[in-house]
Amino acid sequence: MKTIKGGSVTTPAGFLASGIACGIKESGLPDLGLVLSERPATLAAVFTTNLVKAAPVLRGMRLARRGVCRAFIANSGCANACTGPGGLRDADLTADIVARPLGIGAEEVLTASTGKIGMHLDLAKIRRAIPRLVGSLSPDGGGRFAKAILTTDTVPKSVAVKIELSGGTILIGGCAKGAGMISPGMATLLAFLTTDASVKKSLLKHMLKDAAGNSFNRITIDGHMSTNDTAAMMANGASGVSVVSKRDAVIFEEALAFLCSTMAKKMVRYGEGATKLVEIEVTGARSDANAEDMARRIADSALVKCALHGADPNWGRIVSAAGYAGAKFKPENVKLKIGTILVFRNGVPAPFSHTKAVKYMRGDDIAIHLSVGKGKGKAIIHTCDLSKEYVSINAEYTT
Amino acid sequence: MKTIKGGSVTTPAGFLASGIACGIKESGLPDLGLVLSERPATLAAVFTTNLVKAAPVLRGMRLARRGVCRAFIANSGCANACTGPGGLRDADLTADIVARPLGIGAEEVLTASTGKIGMHLDLAKIRRAIPRLVGSLSPDGGGRFAKAILTTDTVPKSVAVKIELSGGTILIGGCAKGAGMISPGMATLLAFLTTDASVKKSLLKHMLKDAAGNSFNRITIDGHMSTNDTAAMMANGASGVSVVSKRDAVIFEEALAFLCSTMAKKMVRYGEGATKLVEIEVTGARSDANAEDMARRIADSALVKCALHGADPNWGRIVSAAGYAGAKFKPENVKLKIGTILVFRNGVPAPFSHTKAVKYMRGDDIAIHLSVGKGKGKAIIHTCDLSKEYVSINAEYTT
Repeated sequence: MKTIKGGSVTTPAGFLASGIACGIKESGLPDLGLVLSERPATLAAVFTTNLVKAAPVLRGMRLARRGVCRAFIANSGCANACTGPGGLRDADLTADIVARPLGIGAEEVLTASTGKIGMHLDLAKIRRAIPRLVGSLSPDGGGRFAKAILTTDTVPKSVAVKIELSGGTILIGGCAKGAGMISPGMATLLAFLTTDASVKKSLLKHMLKDAAGNSFNRITIDGHMSTNDTAAMMANGASGVSVVSKRDAVIFEEALAFLCSTMAKKMVRYGEGATKLVEIEVTGARSDANAEDMARRIADSALVKCALHGADPNWGRIVSAAGYAGAKFKPENVKLKIGTILVFRNGVPAPFSHTKAVKYMRGDDIAIHLSVGKGKGKAIIHTCDLSKEYVSINAEYTT
Repeated sequence: MKTIKGGSVTTPAGFLASGIACGIKESGLPDLGLVLSERPATLAAVFTTNLVKAAPVLRGMRLARRGVCRAFIANSGCANACTGPGGLRDADLTADIVARPLGIGAEEVLTASTGKIGMHLDLAKIRRAIPRLVGSLSPDGGGRFAKAILTTDTVPKSVAVKIELSGGTILIGGCAKGAGMISPGMATLLAFLTTDASVKKSLLKHMLKDAAGNSFNRITIDGHMSTNDTAAMMANGASGVSVVSKRDAVIFEEALAFLCSTMAKKMVRYGEGATKLVEIEVTGARSDANAEDMARRIADSALVKCALHGADPNWGRIVSAAGYAGAKFKPENVKLKIGTILVFRNGVPAPFSHTKAVKYMRGDDIAIHLSVGKGKGKAIIHTCDLSKEYVSINAEYTT
């Protein structure tokens, strides 16, 4: 597997993209993006498990069951969530107005939205922008698309890789957005993936679900699950290469997992107000689910996140967060490491250099490893710190 | 029921208290407190459900089973949690050194600690301070005791009431502390209650559990459940009045609920960095448990708390938080009010005056009411906003 520098959703053959400003965002920044596959593609997608689902999510679930797609259209600045039947109509209309000039069916267009909840889409603005959006489609438009889907994100998150399958070389590209309201339950805010390989619908769905489950679903910025989480992938077969053998599938899935994981970590590193990427690993639990529950409680604790922000090795907050996860363990078997520094073992504090621990925690990448016993259960969750900037961003977001 | 101005744990007859600085806190602020009942008292106590329990909690659970008590000794600045068998020994020794000059048994002394986790108690400091602590016991020492148990709290939380039972007048007093790591699972960080009524052990326990369940267990400041949560109550019968009839029990329990609720709300209003007391009420759920899950998700969402801080009527954050609580409801039946302002109903945004909503949210007391259907399930949770000050306090607490 080889990472492609500057790679994006248009790196795989047969994909065009564009991204423009249509006026949904008051800032005038790009807010409308389009990805087109030149030929019919297999579609796989996973969505939020929040009971309150945005209109484009409800619509996308219908499309994903069919599994055929030609285009993704995504807007930022308005989530089209909590908008009732009117919101569904707006999502359908968006697909319809972009499908016409492309000469494709509205049911071949997956729509996605991100931004403020409880606001209706301004269809007039989208309608006016369509000629410009379609007219600027280009095989190097992946970067512009990645920018058009951002909200409070400070950097776009594009990535692409090249892999060798039995039938030849294929490319996989992707981009994602998300900086707040990030605690995905099925996929993350928005992630779009493309490949010029040919992949069967059921296999593509299976691989995307697995890759999303181990990447997007294992990050948390603020523990708040969005109404709009969507990860969607088109496989258009433009390379002439199919995923056929079991070995092909393994290679493809590995690459997909790498892409999703790269985007997920980038999302956390550049999360709202974040200054650090933190890996929380829990091992020795009675089950993977138990380990995940503990890792999530640690990752979502405001106290732990503040300690991380202040480079404060206040490890009692970590151990106590694991203690209220509802998973059983014996405190006297617990071992906690911050980086390679052992701070707690056998139920009692371990002597350690406070200065060294602070120095380590001042870095941009922090690893925390909690071992709770001899069980086989383990899990890794990525999170970030909680800063005053997070509060600023979210106390002033809509007003 | 009558609230007693300036009331505290020494308001009921037969209780003495003191509070001094013994040097556990580097700041030199009071950090050691003692409450003594002049006669043997019935003890009831409830503790944290965190799996990682502090040494004084483990010890207190043993004492509560016996149900007899003469004194509470509490220190702030050190939680004596994650300290293993040495921590248990320290808790036992603390009880022992204070019991001797008081001429009571060590098993009649409930110890409690709050402060940093993973730090051993400095017994030499406590030992040196005991003569001063015992020597300053006084029938008006309740206020000093309340101050000695504070950590990041900005105000002490004392309260007392007078009630009429069939046999005569009795008094109930209490004080609590807690500003961070507050999401009690059984009681809150530390709450001490006294009464000069005579109450049977089983009845006292039952009433305390109910009162704590509807007050301390219904608040959250940061969703992080402490290792040290303890609410303990002594009933010494010094008034000569017993809780005998069913009617007595109802009056007593009402007063106890009022005391606990007053302290709990004060804890939230003066939570770390808090500027507002927010009541989240969920009604119409399928069960009380479902309603509570939703109310808690809303109360613990960093995004909701930031919006509250910024007086931003960004109601989508509230509805979406309810959506990931795991409880079933139909979004089209949801109705959301901020104060008396209807912002969302029948699955679509309700037109409302943004200016009016902001003005209401700038107040110190905010009420949020979410109705999710026609079920009978309901719950109220009290929480506060999330401010930059919370981050400051918790990014710099131990270093």
